[in-house]
Amino acid sequence: MPRYALELEFNGADFSGSQSQTNARTVQDVVQSALAALAGERVGFRPASRLDQGVSAAALPGDCLLARDWDPEVLGLALNHQLPEDVVVRRAARVPDAFDARRNAAAKHYRYRVLVRPVRPTLDRACLWVRRLQDPARLHELAALIPGRHDLSGFACLRHDDTDQQDPHRDYLAALWSDRILDDAIEWSLRISGRGFLYKQIRGLVGAMVHVAHGRARPDDFRAAMAAGWSARRLGNIAPAEGLLLAGVDYEPCPDWRAIGMESGSGSPEVRKSGSRDREST
Amino acid sequence: MPRYALELEFNGADFSGSQSQTNARTVQDVVQSALAALAGERVGFRPASRLDQGVSAAALPGDCLLARDWDPEVLGLALNHQLPEDVVVRRAARVPDAFDARRNAAAKHYRYRVLVRPVRPTLDRACLWVRRLQDPARLHELAALIPGRHDLSGFACLRHDDTDQQDPHRDYLAALWSDRILDDAIEWSLRISGRGFLYKQIRGLVGAMVHVAHGRARPDDFRAAMAAGWSARRLGNIAPAEGLLLAGVDYEPCPDWRAIGMESGSGSPEVRKSGSRDREST
Repeated sequence: MPRYALELEFNGADFSGSQSQTNARTVQDVVQSALAALAGERVGFRPASRLDQGVSAAALPGDCLLARDWDPEVLGLALNHQLPEDVVVRRAARVPDAFDARRNAAAKHYRYRVLVRPVRPTLDRACLWVRRLQDPARLHELAALIPGRHDLSGFACLRHDDTDQQDPHRDYLAALWSDRILDDAIEWSLRISGRGFLYKQIRGLVGAMVHVAHGRARPDDFRAAMAAGWSARRLGNIAPAEGLLLAGVDYEPCPDWRAIGMESGSGSPEVRKSGSRDREST
Repeated sequence: MPRYALELEFNGADFSGSQSQTNARTVQDVVQSALAALAGERVGFRPASRLDQGVSAAALPGDCLLARDWDPEVLGLALNHQLPEDVVVRRAARVPDAFDARRNAAAKHYRYRVLVRPVRPTLDRACLWVRRLQDPARLHELAALIPGRHDLSGFACLRHDDTDQQDPHRDYLAALWSDRILDDAIEWSLRISGRGFLYKQIRGLVGAMVHVAHGRARPDDFRAAMAAGWSARRLGNIAPAEGLLLAGVDYEPCPDWRAIGMESGSGSPEVRKSGSRDREST
């Protein structure tokens, strides 16, 4: 049976995370249903990352075995017709039998957005909202401490499964804050990359960095938490899931990805919601 | 009784439009409830524009009479504590008794977003999605026709109320498309300003312009529709409500607006959703 990799984009708002669960709507279950409808058989889909409820992805790869041969682009197009409006296949590839989207991941890239403005945002809610940042330069100072091999479990939460007993050291490849001036706000984005992250760790790191940038704790408290591992005292809040986005996962070697929808389709605009109120009266 | 102007931002996704209705959730009703909770009496709020179901606003002004004197900023802060998470007061002003947010509006500024990318978007759905635009330069050509005084009712829908009998000529002040290259898409935005617009007219204009930019109709068809008024044949679809945003309304003279939340508040980050899954276990 040939193996395929699929790269998904999804909006986490209405999902209970990426991983299959009983009595909850998850990305894995929705993709498996679409694959089953297409293949006429039960198909397992293995996502590269376990994303929490409310977290979104621009590019979450996963892999599956199918009975018949598919052109990867046709497979993606056919799945996109089956999938609900909050998840879509961006790229697809035929991969070697041994490919495992989770185990073979060489680097995972995440982005966390913080919106600084005087009133709470209503239009753009995929962020942590803060009224102001007293000393935003602290963000750069703290992010510079992250790259390297560390035990940063002091910023994570316990999963309460057997993975909590494993070595918490991880390789962090990059961590960089950037800012962008909008009409009415300043958007701060953390781009953070690593070979793997602990449970709620990025959200914990963001909460701690924002706490220091507020002047509620000192950079030395952050350094102490980095050194203390599990026993570290929590700095700030776990930042909300809505602000976190999986931007992409790298593989070495890279799958032979095919972008979906580049050549096909009519090019006509698609009106997603066309309820009775949109029926024209002229 | 002193009169106040309030400028609202709201996310239209869960509202049945801006204008009060029975058995539907509207912006006007939600603001009136918040005002009543604050004032301890029934308070009317008059929005400057009637926005359809699904349309959002960055700045929708409205006005109301209150029994007691309020500092405008304190009024805005107090209302923001009462209002649900999808609507917020951005600015507030004490205005003359004769001020009428709708009648006194000198110009209304709208924005419509079109996202061009090969697969349907899941993260950013406040747009019209098109797979590609065959000849986007047509957008500039058509927008240049709009400024001036015209009867553009051929792009609008009938309201089926007495306003349909009125003169459909309006003064259009500006119409301009701009594009922005994103990681995986091109975003086209129409900024259009006028003293007033007909029912679903901006969405009808966008649908027609995109139709021509697709090569489905000629610019001359658009010109003919501009000349034909109500009797014009519909060009393309009415673009979906989610893509439309009221960017702001101008007044002459300008109210003495006070920005809400600039000086007050603790500056601490606010975690909006803190369900049990966000409780930390370390």
